[in-house]
Amino acid sequence: MFEFTYQNPVKICFGNGMIGKTGEELAAFGVKKVLLVYGRNSIKLNGVFDIVTTSLKKSGIEFVEHGGVQSNPLLSHVYAGIEKACAEKTDALLAVGGGSVIDTVKAISLGLANDGDVWDFYCSKRIPEKAIPLFTVLTIPAAGSEMNGGTVITHDETREKLAVVNPLLYPKVSILDPAVTVSVPMDYTAYSASDAISHTIESYLTRADGFCPVQDGYAEGVVRAIMRSTERIRANPADLEARASMMWAATLAWNFLGSSGVGPWTTPAHTLEHPLSGRFNIAHGAGLAVTQPGWMAWELKRRPERVAAFARAIMGVVEADDAVAGVKGIELFRAWLAGIGCPVTLKACGIGEADIPILAADAVHLAKLWGTGSEYTEDVMSAIYRACI
Amino acid sequence: MFEFTYQNPVKICFGNGMIGKTGEELAAFGVKKVLLVYGRNSIKLNGVFDIVTTSLKKSGIEFVEHGGVQSNPLLSHVYAGIEKACAEKTDALLAVGGGSVIDTVKAISLGLANDGDVWDFYCSKRIPEKAIPLFTVLTIPAAGSEMNGGTVITHDETREKLAVVNPLLYPKVSILDPAVTVSVPMDYTAYSASDAISHTIESYLTRADGFCPVQDGYAEGVVRAIMRSTERIRANPADLEARASMMWAATLAWNFLGSSGVGPWTTPAHTLEHPLSGRFNIAHGAGLAVTQPGWMAWELKRRPERVAAFARAIMGVVEADDAVAGVKGIELFRAWLAGIGCPVTLKACGIGEADIPILAADAVHLAKLWGTGSEYTEDVMSAIYRACI
Repeated sequence: MFEFTYQNPVKICFGNGMIGKTGEELAAFGVKKVLLVYGRNSIKLNGVFDIVTTSLKKSGIEFVEHGGVQSNPLLSHVYAGIEKACAEKTDALLAVGGGSVIDTVKAISLGLANDGDVWDFYCSKRIPEKAIPLFTVLTIPAAGSEMNGGTVITHDETREKLAVVNPLLYPKVSILDPAVTVSVPMDYTAYSASDAISHTIESYLTRADGFCPVQDGYAEGVVRAIMRSTERIRANPADLEARASMMWAATLAWNFLGSSGVGPWTTPAHTLEHPLSGRFNIAHGAGLAVTQPGWMAWELKRRPERVAAFARAIMGVVEADDAVAGVKGIELFRAWLAGIGCPVTLKACGIGEADIPILAADAVHLAKLWGTGSEYTEDVMSAIYRACI
Repeated sequence: MFEFTYQNPVKICFGNGMIGKTGEELAAFGVKKVLLVYGRNSIKLNGVFDIVTTSLKKSGIEFVEHGGVQSNPLLSHVYAGIEKACAEKTDALLAVGGGSVIDTVKAISLGLANDGDVWDFYCSKRIPEKAIPLFTVLTIPAAGSEMNGGTVITHDETREKLAVVNPLLYPKVSILDPAVTVSVPMDYTAYSASDAISHTIESYLTRADGFCPVQDGYAEGVVRAIMRSTERIRANPADLEARASMMWAATLAWNFLGSSGVGPWTTPAHTLEHPLSGRFNIAHGAGLAVTQPGWMAWELKRRPERVAAFARAIMGVVEADDAVAGVKGIELFRAWLAGIGCPVTLKACGIGEADIPILAADAVHLAKLWGTGSEYTEDVMSAIYRACI
């Protein structure tokens, strides 16, 4: 194990019907007027918008709507939100949605609280000093953004998809109401599973050598829970127990508790994925279903013991030889992702051989920015992509 | 899964040599003068006292010593600490020790901040409204008190061993330095393992029926990590990786994250143990090594499926029949506890048949106070104790 500090003050309110307490939770922080950020129309169709806004009104909290967040949320929409919040003098921000909506709210929070262009923080040109209080009502479990300080935004023109991770961006309160996730369609349920798994698997596979049974056990438990929950949801989308389990597992997958103490680790599957969703606007979790097994196959040559550990503990592989177990584990994992309805090839995402050079260039750029590792050269990135065709 | 709220703002600073940053961490909270609470002389013999106080001085923080905390910490010593802190006008509290020292600091914090007798809070007569900021430097991993809001104090005369759990009592910062635990002797290392395991196993076994793969996986991972770490420490007490893993696992065992969402659960092993350590002043973890398998054998008749889950996931039992698997799992668990040097019978703790009536009466009293369950009558308590003779 390695040195670490961990502090995560997010208040989680979890349970069916919990969205009715949104107003109460915000009022406890003295919120008077909030910018309510959301995505497409789904929260208006499934009743979530009504319940949340009724709850706000009951607590005497005004709200201004800022809808229209897309998956792979755009910087231009962040700018528009900052302008609206300024003009309307809101004193807090409320995300009602999935990871894209929460990421947008975090970006607006940074833009409101700090001078200058908010994009500077994503380009690592400056470090933010302040943030506006933010709250979340989660409607799609996947990103883990509801219990961490991370945000990912895509630049409209350059299509760069960049991140800020800062403790200032912890939500004050995150409301996790599994009942609202029953309407998440089956494709997005699958992409969510792929996304949440990747958040745990990357530190599990790339962590330094050493004795980390707590962290390994945590990761294995979370991934198995996501897989079992997804299988139950596919059998019965209204299975509230499985929806609840999926929701909490996705949160625990990316609150950075499970990776605390494992030492340096990197995010190769994300480094390979961001160019896909950034350039081709596919769902992030769908892209990760392609890049995870693709990257693992490459990783297997470098650290067969870690991939084999994954294969045995999570995919139930029994082979004693690490390389053999690893190959089998990756195959089973890819088949599992395909079985729940994820694309597992670039082709299935509408991406071809001709696109690889630009993707590889993007990925190398990201690898430098995120410290993914100097071993990930343009040749390596291209080779991994080609193996995913 | 069930409704829950979770918020745990404790800042964890984990790593070898981390105790040298104690002053820095306290200074960040504006602390000027601190009551430094500790146990026997061990922190003066192993150098921890010197490093911590040098660090405080370097940060310009004065300190007043309040040593002499015993295991099963006493109310009289809490009163003395409150008086000293009042007289010396300290503005914060620093525990340097294990669970008993931290529990004492939490009690002093409550006594200083609130009017009236601090014991009232332990008797559930009143609920505290305030607390004085407290910090911990953990030297014995076991109790989990460093990352939760719980405290357990024993009344000098009545020998009642009672608890307060309140978010006010979260430490501001807990410093976890595995290197300082290398000097924990083998018997206390074993008791610590027994204690930490119990914190996870109680919710695992008593939780309501339902689909909780995240929580089950978390508990199984933590317990397996404690077992593997303890085995490595026994083979080599200076194994820093194992000491580190043990330390972090014990913290995660009792920060209430793993049990969040499992619904109502109870603490029968603790309810049966507190009378043992309260009356006979044995180590809490040693008492739990007796009561855990003893209680499990009784629980097996009520909920064989949960005990069998424990037997299979943690003790590696493969039997398909729940009752058979349960019996085997309990046997293996008791043998494991004995193997690491824990007493596993009342006799080994110097407790005999004649003591059972008073123990059972104490346990029933506690069961009422803690809501352990009306099924735990005096007859049941006696029967479990008798089976532990």
